[in-house]
This record gives sequence, structure tokens and C-alpha cells, in this order.
Amino acid sequence: MADYNRYGHAHGQGYGQQGYGYAPSAPPAPTPSSSSSYGYPPPPMGGFGGAVAFPPGTHPDVERAFRAVDRDRSGSIDEGELQAALSGAYHRFSIRTVRLLIFLFSDASPRSRMGPAEFATLWNCLGQWRVVFDRYDRDRSGKIESNELREALRGLGYAVPPAVIDLLIANYNNGVSNRGALDFDNFVECGMVVKGLTEKFKENDTRHTGSAALSYDGFLSMVIPFIVP
Amino acid sequence: MADYNRYGHAHGQGYGQQGYGYAPSAPPAPTPSSSSSYGYPPPPMGGFGGAVAFPPGTHPDVERAFRAVDRDRSGSIDEGELQAALSGAYHRFSIRTVRLLIFLFSDASPRSRMGPAEFATLWNCLGQWRVVFDRYDRDRSGKIESNELREALRGLGYAVPPAVIDLLIANYNNGVSNRGALDFDNFVECGMVVKGLTEKFKENDTRHTGSAALSYDGFLSMVIPFIVP
Repeated sequence: MADYNRYGHAHGQGYGQQGYGYAPSAPPAPTPSSSSSYGYPPPPMGGFGGAVAFPPGTHPDVERAFRAVDRDRSGSIDEGELQAALSGAYHRFSIRTVRLLIFLFSDASPRSRMGPAEFATLWNCLGQWRVVFDRYDRDRSGKIESNELREALRGLGYAVPPAVIDLLIANYNNGVSNRGALDFDNFVECGMVVKGLTEKFKENDTRHTGSAALSYDGFLSMVIPFIVP
Repeated sequence: MADYNRYGHAHGQGYGQQGYGYAPSAPPAPTPSSSSSYGYPPPPMGGFGGAVAFPPGTHPDVERAFRAVDRDRSGSIDEGELQAALSGAYHRFSIRTVRLLIFLFSDASPRSRMGPAEFATLWNCLGQWRVVFDRYDRDRSGKIESNELREALRGLGYAVPPAVIDLLIANYNNGVSNRGALDFDNFVECGMVVKGLTEKFKENDTRHTGSAALSYDGFLSMVIPFIVP
């Protein structure tokens, strides 16, 4: 049997099995999300171009944030609109991080826009991540130290080996004046990369052995979308 | 047995088995490299900080380009110096592409600098790639069309499936005014990603079956270095 602790069941909890209905062990998000909105299945594809349909129980703040940027009532938002929607509640993410979030959370094709249910799922996930980030940003500097990244990712349910942590730090602490520390943007980006790759790996570890057999085509197709310029 | 055509033996030739001594089926590079300089093993680690040691047979142009930017005679060059060294002969690559080239071609630790032997290997490789690029840039526009990318990569020895080509195009044609076409910088970056991932995959396909069994840690460690901000 697989040693699931090695990739994310650090707290004995499974990943959300339905799309991105992620249910980590962190406490509930502070303000915007109601706890009942965790764990929704992926949004229906038909939500675009028509009525703006949020899942039942979606917190009014989430709907408000979405509608504030979806001015043409198209029912979906693009990367610039998502960036604006998240700025007030969470962080002004770089457009690079925003693209990664759309790639990971959107089921739309092409993956350049995001619908209301996907937005609600993302919002709730970021609420969880903010809680974990704040827990390790003890001096409220807006950054967490690199040596706490491993614990923070573990808090999100990802048991990442030290060598990988070192790689993440080497990649994601650029541009931050205090080298070796991550701001929330970099934390989300590197954590989302771990989350996305872990989910892809797990899809291929069908027998839960902790090992996945990948074809060359499958390997390239899985990995290249993460390598976004 | 593995169907090697699926990952790079499109012309019945093997990858260079010694580091990046890559020997594709493309014709020899046009000007700078002597053919005898292909296929060198990786450079010795001791080449840094001391005498500037090029492999025997290195073309004088390559040495000149290196020495012109290594002003302090440290024996290694950083990313800005590499960018400058390549600008005259090949292209003013983006710093992002330069970092990828250092990551793929440098054995130094930390991988932020490049020594003379590594530089010579890179120079020769780019000569090959320039030949292939020019072959498909038929109107000399400085760009190749996206539908020719597959053939161009095949010309470099990488048989990439159509779905992956589509992913590459989606990722790498940003910023080029003529959407769907790649300039040399983007061509090199996306091709180098394919080259690097293929070599990593092949290291794990030890029995040449076309399939690799990867552990979660191994998978993350292999992939994350390519996801450079």
C-alpha cells in the first residue's frame, strides 16, 4: 500500500475526490467563506455566458467579489478580472500566479476564464491558505521564512521532501528583498504547483503504491502545462 | 522494447550518452563550431575559478565569445554574461531562456554560472538548433509557424506527439505579435524544455520500455526545476 503521508495525507485526511473540492486539515477560512461551501463538485460547464450560478451556500462576499468584476454579466471572468477580484480580499497576485490559478481551478475550455462555482472554490481554498500562511508569518511581516515552508505545506496537506523544499525556495524567493522568505504571492504559486503536480501524480498512481508508471507522452502532457512562461 | 521513435530516436540515432554531448541528425552548425567539438563529456568541475580550459578542438570563435564577457578571468560566466556572449552569434535571448540554458547545460553548483567546456557544448547545440530553425523559417521572417514546430523538433531528434505540440504552442507563442509563430528565443526555450524533460524521463526509463516508474519524490524533484518563475 502507498505511504500516503509522502504525498499529502499528512494528517490522515484524503484529498477532495471531486475536482478541487479540497478539504485540508487547516482551520476554516477566517472571513469570506462559510464552511458549508467546502467540497463542492466541479462546476457545470453550462455556467458560462448565461446566468451567474453560484453553488448553494456561497458566502455573499464571494458573490459580491465576482459580480464586481464581471461587469458585462458574461458569467465568467478573465485573468485581469480575477486578479482584481482577489486583490481586495487576499492579495494582488502577479498575473503569472493568476494564470496558474485559472489553469488549476478552471474547467472551462480554453482555460483562460473562470466561472462562478470555480471562483467560489478558489476563494475558499485561498482562505485556507491565508490561514496557514498567517500562522507561520509570526511577526506579521507579510512573509514566511523559507525554513517554515515545509511546515506550512504540511499544514495544507502536502508532505514535501526536504530536497524539493530546497528547489522550491531556490525558484520562488526571487524578487523578494529578504532572500529566503516568501510573500503570499510566491507562497501561493509554489504551493499551487505542489498541489497541481500532486493531483496529477495521484491520478496516475491508481493503485496507491506511491509510484506512478508514466508513458513519455503522458509525462510530457502532464508536466508542460505547469511550465508557463 | 521501447519504441524510441516516440521520444527522440526519430532518425535512428541515440541521444548523446555523455551529459549534453548531443548529436542530432541535423547538419553541422554553420559557422562557429568545428564538428570535432560535438559529443564532449561534461566538463570537469575543477574548471572554475582557475584557468579557462576549453576542450581540445574548440573553435576560436567560441573561446573569443567566452573571454569577451569573462572580463575578470574568473573562468565562469553568469547569466547576464552568457546573455551577452550569445547575443552576437545567435540571439539576444530573454533572461528566462538564459536561465533555462544554464540550468540544462551547467554542472556547476549552484547552477548559476557556466564554465568554458559547458559554454562550448551549449554553443554547438545552439548552432544545430539555428540550422533547424532557419530550415523552417522559409520566408526569413525570424519566426517559424506553429504547425512546423513538430517537424522542427523532429529535426532535432524529438518526436513529440501532437497534443504536446499544442500545449507548447499555447505556452510559448505569447508575446509574439504574429500569434501561432515562434521566434528563435521561444523556439529554443520550448525545445530546451522538451530536451530536458526527455533526458530526465529517459534516465528513469532504464529498461527502454517507453514507460518510467516514478516515485512521488522523484517526480517532484525532476519536474520542479523546470518550473522557473
